[in-house]
Amino acid sequence: MIGAGDCSDDVCKLAEEVGERIAEAGAILVCGGMGGVMEAACKGAKKRGGLTIGILPGIDKDQANSYIDFPIVTGLGEGRNLLVVRNSDSVIAFPGEFGTLSEIAFCLKLGKPVVGLSTWEVSDKIIQAKNAQEAVDIALSRAKALQKGYE
Amino acid sequence: MIGAGDCSDDVCKLAEEVGERIAEAGAILVCGGMGGVMEAACKGAKKRGGLTIGILPGIDKDQANSYIDFPIVTGLGEGRNLLVVRNSDSVIAFPGEFGTLSEIAFCLKLGKPVVGLSTWEVSDKIIQAKNAQEAVDIALSRAKALQKGYE
Amino acid sequence: MIGAGDCSDDVCKLAEEVGERIAEAGAILVCGGMGGVMEAACKGAKKRGGLTIGILPGIDKDQANSYIDFPIVTGLGEGRNLLVVRNSDSVIAFPGEFGTLSEIAFCLKLGKPVVGLSTWEVSDKIIQAKNAQEAVDIALSRAKALQKGYE
Amino acid sequence: MIGAGDCSDDVCKLAEEVGERIAEAGAILVCGGMGGVMEAACKGAKKRGGLTIGILPGIDKDQANSYIDFPIVTGLGEGRNLLVVRNSDSVIAFPGEFGTLSEIAFCLKLGKPVVGLSTWEVSDKIIQAKNAQEAVDIALSRAKALQKGYE
Repeated sequence: MIGAGDCSDDVCKLAEEVGERIAEAGAILVCGGMGGVMEAACKGAKKRGGLTIGILPGIDKDQANSYIDFPIVTGLGEGRNLLVVRNSDSVIAFPGEFGTLSEIAFCLKLGKPVVGLSTWEVSDKIIQAKNAQEAVDIALSRAKALQKGYE
Repeated sequence: MIGAGDCSDDVCKLAEEVGERIAEAGAILVCGGMGGVMEAACKGAKKRGGLTIGILPGIDKDQANSYIDFPIVTGLGEGRNLLVVRNSDSVIAFPGEFGTLSEIAFCLKLGKPVVGLSTWEVSDKIIQAKNAQEAVDIALSRAKALQKGYE
Repeated sequence: MIGAGDCSDDVCKLAEEVGERIAEAGAILVCGGMGGVMEAACKGAKKRGGLTIGILPGIDKDQANSYIDFPIVTGLGEGRNLLVVRNSDSVIAFPGEFGTLSEIAFCLKLGKPVVGLSTWEVSDKIIQAKNAQEAVDIALSRAKALQKGYE
Repeated sequence: MIGAGDCSDDVCKLAEEVGERIAEAGAILVCGGMGGVMEAACKGAKKRGGLTIGILPGIDKDQANSYIDFPIVTGLGEGRNLLVVRNSDSVIAFPGEFGTLSEIAFCLKLGKPVVGLSTWEVSDKIIQAKNAQEAVDIALSRAKALQKGYE
């Protein structure tokens, strides 16, 4: 999932719920590993026994929020945004700034499914979801459909 | 400058004119080095004796269009988009797909001036220009202003 | 750990044993995720219930050997060698070709502990080990010493 | 060319002479753009009207030494070493530390010709040269031979 490094209470709550639903579905949560939306979602995933991977911009794994199981350092700066996308089977996009926009752009460029929760509306290829459960359901079913297509 | 790997006749003509104005101003044209808008702009720059640098996604410098003086290979795939932005003092954005959108996002994230010519309208920080001359004038004056700010 | 994409029976056996010792020590095995020495070590780690992370050169996680728990794709080609090193607290180096040599060079450049098992002898900063157990013991104690140094 | 960020008087003089010979041959000098051997070689190239490209580890083009015509910023840290190699048709290697060793390793991995001037002797694929003129002659003829091979 992708989204801002800080978030309002409402968005944080939504992100935490998305994390819970991802964990309950047995999926791995991949994100940029930092604070805000990323931290809230990881917190939710860990509440339900899920696994979290954080792909960090710097070279210090202590940059990761405290809910990241596996911090991956890159030293690529904003270039890590592309690695977050490349390592995701599908992406749930929260409200975010221009970093989030770059990630949405890479998803669309690479043909990865993007589910939007009140995020940038730059393409009708972004599937708008109404709530956390719907976002996770769509993201996982689209990822599964893509994998079947490859087989 | 950034923009799509293919372009309509109108956009190609506009890009070529932008390339000419950049060269006349004595500036170096930095782009992704491929076809479409990039090639048209480079063609314009070379018509006026300008210099062109193409930052390529692959590892083969023969990928570059034939108006590139200095092809820089990266092997980073779409990750080269970030390097195009990092190597530009300011950016003129043409119509483009999601690759162009990722570059605009990185510009805005990094605080680089972006001048838009009928491109993605995702932020009011993108300065809309009416024609080639205006786009180049704004891009160069903003770049100069930033450099003075650093001194 | 780092080493060649293919290996003799002897080296494969040694790598498998190193993987077992890493897992028994409760450490995570980070490697380039491909075949040869990497696969043998991962096989050993999984035999003892360990965890394995493979940092891949391409963008397809199916490149990973079948003992990798968490494949991380990069799309950086040989540039992923640097990410293997950046994501390791210490490195055990097996016989390898020039890719392995580049990783040893990055370790030494970044000041990461390198333990050698019949690998490139390009610096006396590489700590030579006599067997799998000794290699893992040294690697883990050096990593721990470094972390304490930072605290 | 590749080599250390600082150099003895003798090595600096040799590097400057290599830069002169590269320029006289009409070739472009590509390097890491920083001080030491790189700066000396660039100084030599500019004395003879040559062109110099510096591929920098950081994102600030002012990192480049003052003889670089075209600084290319990367923000990849040591990862830029791979880009120096990828952007070279052949490489002349001077004495250097582990960064230079990583570049030699990448050259050998990618099959790029490497000419050595008192540098790391890690492979007999490194062609040892006796002086500046010989190093440049070999480097250019090997690069030319490779290009013909591709045609």
